[in-house]
Amino acid sequence: MREVSIIKIGGNVVDSPEALENFLQKFNNIPSPKILIHGGGVIASQFSKRMGIEPKMHNGRRITDFETLKIVAMTYAGWVNKSIVAQLQKIGCNAIGLSGADGNCVPAKRRDPKPIDFGYVGDVEPQKINKELIDNLLSNGITPVFCAITHDENGSLLNTNADTMASSIAVALSSLYSVKLIFCFEKNGVLYSADDDNSVIPTITEELFEELREKEIVSAGMLPKLENSFAALNNGVEEVIIKKAENLDIELGSKLILKN
Amino acid sequence: MREVSIIKIGGNVVDSPEALENFLQKFNNIPSPKILIHGGGVIASQFSKRMGIEPKMHNGRRITDFETLKIVAMTYAGWVNKSIVAQLQKIGCNAIGLSGADGNCVPAKRRDPKPIDFGYVGDVEPQKINKELIDNLLSNGITPVFCAITHDENGSLLNTNADTMASSIAVALSSLYSVKLIFCFEKNGVLYSADDDNSVIPTITEELFEELREKEIVSAGMLPKLENSFAALNNGVEEVIIKKAENLDIELGSKLILKN
Repeated sequence: MREVSIIKIGGNVVDSPEALENFLQKFNNIPSPKILIHGGGVIASQFSKRMGIEPKMHNGRRITDFETLKIVAMTYAGWVNKSIVAQLQKIGCNAIGLSGADGNCVPAKRRDPKPIDFGYVGDVEPQKINKELIDNLLSNGITPVFCAITHDENGSLLNTNADTMASSIAVALSSLYSVKLIFCFEKNGVLYSADDDNSVIPTITEELFEELREKEIVSAGMLPKLENSFAALNNGVEEVIIKKAENLDIELGSKLILKN
Repeated sequence: MREVSIIKIGGNVVDSPEALENFLQKFNNIPSPKILIHGGGVIASQFSKRMGIEPKMHNGRRITDFETLKIVAMTYAGWVNKSIVAQLQKIGCNAIGLSGADGNCVPAKRRDPKPIDFGYVGDVEPQKINKELIDNLLSNGITPVFCAITHDENGSLLNTNADTMASSIAVALSSLYSVKLIFCFEKNGVLYSADDDNSVIPTITEELFEELREKEIVSAGMLPKLENSFAALNNGVEEVIIKKAENLDIELGSKLILKN
């Protein structure tokens, strides 16, 4: 089976020109077909503030009213996405920047306004992803770069969690490819002790995850990432790794597997 | 030879939700393969003002410093482009939104800073356009929607005139397709009398254009559009029409031809 690497980077890489350049070089060195999915939250909040719109959050998740939707679509699909594409083109990677609306790649369902109305926020259904178009691009040597903006197939753009976007695309492609999903973030991996970046848990089975969750060893912010990861593994993805972006080219990080 | 329609819309359509919806319906009704190129200047200026950046113009052309480049990339490639794509998807047109950086579709050369430094502004060379990728998308039933953002192949995005973008893509595709290029704007066509929207000049040959230019019948704003149009006709484009966006589906406007 053909291989594809799906790599998600968060705001900490996107916000730093040096970190981004360094990461994109390493990303470009991956020989197999690959897909990049990026966040960009801090930049959106900065633009939002400059335009006099105070970011609204609930439990660390952005509430997306119409004005905020404009800001995130502008930031993620506009500046961040196209800047990444231009930089990849510079180093010889034939990237194409996409939102979920483009080619109807990633349709989503607007989240139920109850119990909390998150506004223009969409949840992705992996089985509705247009994997044929993504496969066509990959087969033509093109590298898709996705921002986490989707659409409801009824004319509205939707703001979507970038981790979920990455794991959904990974699941969708797992019927065509052997998929390796890599979440890059600011730590070396999933840590036993949040303060000690050397306390990486090298291998996490689903059983160990339940134990870590019960003992509250993994932080609140890490929980959805791990839930996303195990959902991906349970739905056809071959391998999930959580690591630091600058370690993309070295074997350091947490490898998630269903069982030993 | 296969046919393709390349249609450019300006800010007056993009700025009005009703006009845009109406236009996109008519655009979707065009049966042949088609490409949309859009501007979006007024929205960019509004965002720019809200962010405290005063738009800088020289002879009606925007001077694009780095902060302004961010604004135009965000507005054109982000909000405007993705909103149009989502609306086309809603009505059954499988659109994909692209900047010139995506798939290296439209590389450009940063304009010489002398005599006037326009900043991050790029001029397109039609022979460098990636017509194979555009053809691949069209052949797969996908409708490309271009914003007028390009890149210099060295990591920088560039702001580009949308009319020039449209005529350059038209010229590039003319070796593969019989190309019809349509410029939509706020008037019924090229007018004998700027105040009288009924004074449309139905057919304009290159000879008549020279006459109109000498007698200063065509306005300063119309001149580059006509120059672009005749350059396109002289480089393989089959037909150029200048008309009002809402008349896309009816035979009203100015048809440009090389000679009678």
